Amino acid sequence: MSSPCSSCSTASTCSGSCSSVPELTEAQKLSNIKNVVAVMSGKGGVGKSSVTSMLAVSLMRQGYKVGILDADITGPSIPKIFGLKDKASAAEKGIMPVKSMSGIKIVSLNLMLENEDDPVIWRGPVISQLVKQFWTDVIWGELDYLLIDLPPGTGDVPISVLQSIPVDGLVIVTSPQQLANMVVRKAIKMATMYKATFYGLVENMAYIECPDCNKRIEIFGKPAGEKEAAANEIPYLGQLPIDPRLTALSDAGQVEEYQSALFDVIAQKVDACSKEKSPKETA
Amino acid sequence: MSSPCSSCSTASTCSGSCSSVPELTEAQKLSNIKNVVAVMSGKGGVGKSSVTSMLAVSLMRQGYKVGILDADITGPSIPKIFGLKDKASAAEKGIMPVKSMSGIKIVSLNLMLENEDDPVIWRGPVISQLVKQFWTDVIWGELDYLLIDLPPGTGDVPISVLQSIPVDGLVIVTSPQQLANMVVRKAIKMATMYKATFYGLVENMAYIECPDCNKRIEIFGKPAGEKEAAANEIPYLGQLPIDPRLTALSDAGQVEEYQSALFDVIAQKVDACSKEKSPKETA
Repeated sequence: MSSPCSSCSTASTCSGSCSSVPELTEAQKLSNIKNVVAVMSGKGGVGKSSVTSMLAVSLMRQGYKVGILDADITGPSIPKIFGLKDKASAAEKGIMPVKSMSGIKIVSLNLMLENEDDPVIWRGPVISQLVKQFWTDVIWGELDYLLIDLPPGTGDVPISVLQSIPVDGLVIVTSPQQLANMVVRKAIKMATMYKATFYGLVENMAYIECPDCNKRIEIFGKPAGEKEAAANEIPYLGQLPIDPRLTALSDAGQVEEYQSALFDVIAQKVDACSKEKSPKETA
Repeated sequence: MSSPCSSCSTASTCSGSCSSVPELTEAQKLSNIKNVVAVMSGKGGVGKSSVTSMLAVSLMRQGYKVGILDADITGPSIPKIFGLKDKASAAEKGIMPVKSMSGIKIVSLNLMLENEDDPVIWRGPVISQLVKQFWTDVIWGELDYLLIDLPPGTGDVPISVLQSIPVDGLVIVTSPQQLANMVVRKAIKMATMYKATFYGLVENMAYIECPDCNKRIEIFGKPAGEKEAAANEIPYLGQLPIDPRLTALSDAGQVEEYQSALFDVIAQKVDACSKEKSPKETA
């Protein structure tokens, strides 16, 4: 849970008043985030942003207050998926997120750029600093879940998120390609070094159904998510197909209209993991 | 072309002996690279590494000497795609690339790690420095083409490559998803700021053919590569399907066994662009 002590190794024995607890910013004093879940892969293009978005939508439908912190600074997808047109605004005490149609609070650098395709040609330290500010300087308010959409790789942003944000659990996204899984294992090993908790692994892009003959086509090879999860000793959350409807709705900024029992089940499992981790703090 | 003067604005008027020309390293003195082509996208998972690999294979089949510099330090795919088992070795004067089955010279951080899935938890400046070393400290020898496989994003590595390596031309890879194209446009705008030359845009993952009924399924939306290329005022190189055979051969490390007339045509177009750019220097 996102108390400032949660990442401290002596939290269980100290009185909670040690000097290493950083003072809360004004924005943090106005926020109460019960669970922080980061969506990670290491590999690009396996659907981290889709999984983050639909996880948010499913948790919202289950009655939770949800936010998304888009930590993919140079390749942000979240605002487009939700069709956000407004820009994030600065209030006296911090940055105000933009609300999606159904009320999900979103912060992304693309909500601060003039044009959505303007590039951000920044080196790692600047990017890392911005991600930290998305945690410290945003007035998130009351949230049951803050989902963090991580960029690919095991560089600056994942390092900074795992070091400076009290992430409760990780959702790992992979695809059936062995090549993808090799890179995803790098991310899992990295997160293990940071003693992260794994809520589980989602195998995305597992198959597609031919719209004509309904044949199930395994375009990226034989699904291996369950085996991969077991080999990495993390829970298996389920398998998702490539669904052209989801692609179309995401491109149209209408992801909130997508219905998927598969995503709902994954969201329920993530919710169960959170409750198991901090039973008193999740509603 | 990769002369040290090629990126200098006064190259056409000076005598070539100005003080800003960095001294060549021992490895560079042993290398003669005629054309440097970087494969870029901005977006992850659209097939940069597949396009880089098959471009290398096609150029090799056309009789050229080819190398690949894998600049995706935290998510390197190239060694696995080519099934490389040997490690890169250090000679007295520099790093020796590993040769693929058909003789493509490859350098990748994954050829220097003990296990292919060991993570590299490095911040941007360290990663950038390594990519520069792959240019200055590798004994590439005689090459007609050095292809650079860039990571996603517009951060440290693309910045360093465009700033410190004399890239002759860029191949941009995208997919039909509007979401992907929005991010790809960021990369194109970035490269434009660095006055890069665009050899053209490849639209990957444009469709898949149902193995049962042969229906062409456009899983990521209606292909728009030609339109996208025109909108960005860069040449259009062609469209590629998702081919499960290529995925399987890449996962098996046997990409060199893949035959594709589509890739050959793209390689011929890239070759034509290179010849047009530096007619005297390409064989």
